[in-house]
Amino acid sequence: MVSFVVIGHTARTDGTFSLNDLAGGAGRMDVLCRCVNASLLLSHGVREDNDCSLVLLGSPSPPKTVKFSGNTVRSLNPDERSPAAFLKKALAIPCGSEFREAAPGVAVRKGGLNRLLQEGSYAVLDENGTDIRNVNLLPSAFLLSDHRNFTDDEKALIEDCPRFSVGPAVLHADHAITILLNEIDRRNAGWR
Amino acid sequence: MVSFVVIGHTARTDGTFSLNDLAGGAGRMDVLCRCVNASLLLSHGVREDNDCSLVLLGSPSPPKTVKFSGNTVRSLNPDERSPAAFLKKALAIPCGSEFREAAPGVAVRKGGLNRLLQEGSYAVLDENGTDIRNVNLLPSAFLLSDHRNFTDDEKALIEDCPRFSVGPAVLHADHAITILLNEIDRRNAGWR
Repeated sequence: MVSFVVIGHTARTDGTFSLNDLAGGAGRMDVLCRCVNASLLLSHGVREDNDCSLVLLGSPSPPKTVKFSGNTVRSLNPDERSPAAFLKKALAIPCGSEFREAAPGVAVRKGGLNRLLQEGSYAVLDENGTDIRNVNLLPSAFLLSDHRNFTDDEKALIEDCPRFSVGPAVLHADHAITILLNEIDRRNAGWR
Repeated sequence: MVSFVVIGHTARTDGTFSLNDLAGGAGRMDVLCRCVNASLLLSHGVREDNDCSLVLLGSPSPPKTVKFSGNTVRSLNPDERSPAAFLKKALAIPCGSEFREAAPGVAVRKGGLNRLLQEGSYAVLDENGTDIRNVNLLPSAFLLSDHRNFTDDEKALIEDCPRFSVGPAVLHADHAITILLNEIDRRNAGWR
């Protein structure tokens, strides 16, 4: 089981955004959608043991967290609009401090990074971290930022987290997730 | 320099498709758009030495090939709609047997896989191929299929091509490109 958390610094926190403007009015929701799909989707199947939580920090009511769970999500397709439609639905319903299911495998609650860090340990995917190929035992929960760097407040929260790098190039968050899961797939299959 | 060719078995060959329906009416153009972006985009930059050619086999006038060149493309963004808008523009202009530029770094011509194979050598990314990590000298041109398997006619054309696998899981084409480029990035940076 591998868990991902991705911070969406500008992503809308209500359901009024347009599926036709994910990169604009929705606050770079496109990045987050690709991260969901990289975390959960194989070519013709779902990574049932994985989940991906998006911490949304845009207007009008941040922070909210939307969690996609591979073992229960249904009809998730690999195009950006598919997870975006689930996000739109999840962000349209009233929510409190506990997760509320908006669709099978898609749940929403108020709260963000602070609470997630109280509930579990995360490693940070960071271009200055230790090469994942040189780590004997990889952790099972990872934190990434969207197209923006972590803010100073976030950096303070995660300063004690271990840091891992997927390679020498600075990549989009979804590409980093894909490479990390490849390393884990290889280890699980004895390919390393 | 790394070149990718991706076969789009159902992708429209005119510019009438909607940017709001890439996975449907456009014939799974979403897969091809993500492949373009995986081939060419870094987090905040372009892989200027790379190119990505899409062989489009859907209605109404297949085959056509649209080539995105990293060294000259401008304003390519990482969301699916961005390369799709270039594709729509390229497929809307008349074209012949030679590449015609539709926008900087985006060119279109008639013809498909047969011609590309006459012009250069390609390795096939295939889950049954040799593990890329076990190959001393990786080639610089790769061929992939979209969400469908290669047809029997395509298999006949590529039966003599070397085959490489990026890992034990069967992945979407864009994820395979991302992993392959990570391996090449590592070798170029001395990380291997």
